[in-house]
Amino acid sequence: MSGDSTYDYFGGIEGGATHSKMVLFRSDGKVMAKTEGPSTNQWLVGQEECLKRVSEMVQEAKKIAGLDEKKPIKALGLSMSGADQKEAQQQIIDGMKSKYGEVSESVAVSSDTNGAIATATATGGIVLIAGTGSNCQLVNPDGSTYRCGGWGHLLGDEGGAYWISQRAIKAYFDHEDNLHPQPYDVTFVRDAMLKYFKIEERNGLLQYLYTNFDKSFIAGMCKELAAGAIEKKDRLCQQMFHDAGEILAGHILALEPKIDKKLLEQGLSVVCVGSVWKSWELMKSGFMEVMEKNTSHRIRQLSLCELKESAAVGAASIGATSIGSLLPLDYSENASVFFKTQLGK
Amino acid sequence: MSGDSTYDYFGGIEGGATHSKMVLFRSDGKVMAKTEGPSTNQWLVGQEECLKRVSEMVQEAKKIAGLDEKKPIKALGLSMSGADQKEAQQQIIDGMKSKYGEVSESVAVSSDTNGAIATATATGGIVLIAGTGSNCQLVNPDGSTYRCGGWGHLLGDEGGAYWISQRAIKAYFDHEDNLHPQPYDVTFVRDAMLKYFKIEERNGLLQYLYTNFDKSFIAGMCKELAAGAIEKKDRLCQQMFHDAGEILAGHILALEPKIDKKLLEQGLSVVCVGSVWKSWELMKSGFMEVMEKNTSHRIRQLSLCELKESAAVGAASIGATSIGSLLPLDYSENASVFFKTQLGK
Repeated sequence: MSGDSTYDYFGGIEGGATHSKMVLFRSDGKVMAKTEGPSTNQWLVGQEECLKRVSEMVQEAKKIAGLDEKKPIKALGLSMSGADQKEAQQQIIDGMKSKYGEVSESVAVSSDTNGAIATATATGGIVLIAGTGSNCQLVNPDGSTYRCGGWGHLLGDEGGAYWISQRAIKAYFDHEDNLHPQPYDVTFVRDAMLKYFKIEERNGLLQYLYTNFDKSFIAGMCKELAAGAIEKKDRLCQQMFHDAGEILAGHILALEPKIDKKLLEQGLSVVCVGSVWKSWELMKSGFMEVMEKNTSHRIRQLSLCELKESAAVGAASIGATSIGSLLPLDYSENASVFFKTQLGK
Repeated sequence: MSGDSTYDYFGGIEGGATHSKMVLFRSDGKVMAKTEGPSTNQWLVGQEECLKRVSEMVQEAKKIAGLDEKKPIKALGLSMSGADQKEAQQQIIDGMKSKYGEVSESVAVSSDTNGAIATATATGGIVLIAGTGSNCQLVNPDGSTYRCGGWGHLLGDEGGAYWISQRAIKAYFDHEDNLHPQPYDVTFVRDAMLKYFKIEERNGLLQYLYTNFDKSFIAGMCKELAAGAIEKKDRLCQQMFHDAGEILAGHILALEPKIDKKLLEQGLSVVCVGSVWKSWELMKSGFMEVMEKNTSHRIRQLSLCELKESAAVGAASIGATSIGSLLPLDYSENASVFFKTQLGK
């Protein structure tokens, strides 16, 4: 098995803090294989493990596609959470070349935000990630990029699932301590926490926060909070998502001064990535409050769109571009608008 | 060498998130030895390592005191940060007995706050820790205890050195990101951060926050911020300490409804423990604002005192009490008032 040698092959990986996705393209745009793997965030799993996981995903994809596993693909694009830093990007490239030379002839690394934008559009825009963590990046038509956030759970991650879970837990703790009494009933959040972590009282939580810290597991509680906000109409849960909407809108406004006119004229499109966006209806009130309260910004038309395809698609495209190739993508198939609004007078 | 067999020996350890202190008493109250060791916070170093470190400190103290290292002392009191939970306390007791039986006949474990109060007074009071982390505990004359905070850096630690450092760093990051522009100049905080972590730009910080997280090292930056607040009169640094004062006062008020009348009638005494209190002058404005703004509380006279002796002394006393012995302590020598105020009309 060695594939069709008249084609080149391009791989893309979307590496998240919880799981990763891989797609393998043939140079004519045909998807040959899709695989999945665990987190490849180097800050969470370490760089060595990250390289190993990346390699395994690509090799598995080759196998599915019927390609020779010993023959490197043409280019691999990695679009990874935690890979914003040039130095770390270069380390990953060097590590892949020296340890996993059979994987790909060429490797391009960029942050998770870049892969998302490259999946949705070829002309740039804003990507706003609210998954386990959060991050926001602007790519202007001239290729210049600006970011806000994305500094991990100790310095930010506002609006991400870990942040929402942690804030709900803290709201309950602070209420119990009488440090910040809640205007809302904390019963649902307390019970959801005890049940989710399978503990009997709040002290039991400490092992999950410290001894065996698992950001992604803590973030998983967010799903229970969303259920509480919708099914039980729990006010505290609702407030947490309202607050997430506020701070996510804040990320867009933080980048607003840097947005190229062209992107504004055609109506600003924000690519929304990550599971928290499934709770958009819960976040909308906070989001719109912030967008409408601030009247000095230039955003007049705003649409939020979600990816229909994994950001691994954009990552593969970035990988191809990095060696001067063009991967043909049908962008209209890759993203769809789920919210549109007019702002200002 | 086997010591004077007409005496019993009592040990006490104050176990912190950064370092630990040990004192070995003879039953007549004479200090036989003092030793120091690294962190014994089980959430930070793991329970096994915690037991090993505790054992090493006691054995070293016995050696200094000229006692037989193979002969257990009568009782060991451990007053440790991160040992608030009954279950964890029992695990430490069991672990000491099964693995380090030569250390002490009896072991008593309590939170770091208890050791501090037992050092300052025999009648109870409030202890407010602002060291690497923070914690507040009330011990009423009837022995009942209530706490506020002390949940570690992911759920609180407000007013502690890690919290102050982290907030200053985040203020700089958020300013750079335009997410929360600062009214104050961030230059000093940025430069202090780059210098302290020996990095060239803010991305370099991520390894210290994630790959090689060391809470105590991050907390160490607080000292530089205090220097900036005093020597450079840096407004952002000053604000961080002002905020710390506010939230530390908030901890006292959170416990106010539970304070026994007797403690209030004699004038509430708060035992202040931890290095952050060295910056009291910087925190005073925020602290007093909160104490004076809230007019519904019953605190009329408030004094803040600092320990002249390590909380290891109180820990030893708790250890002695736990087996029905009384360690004679001169409390007037153990603590001194550094701030006193009248509140309300």
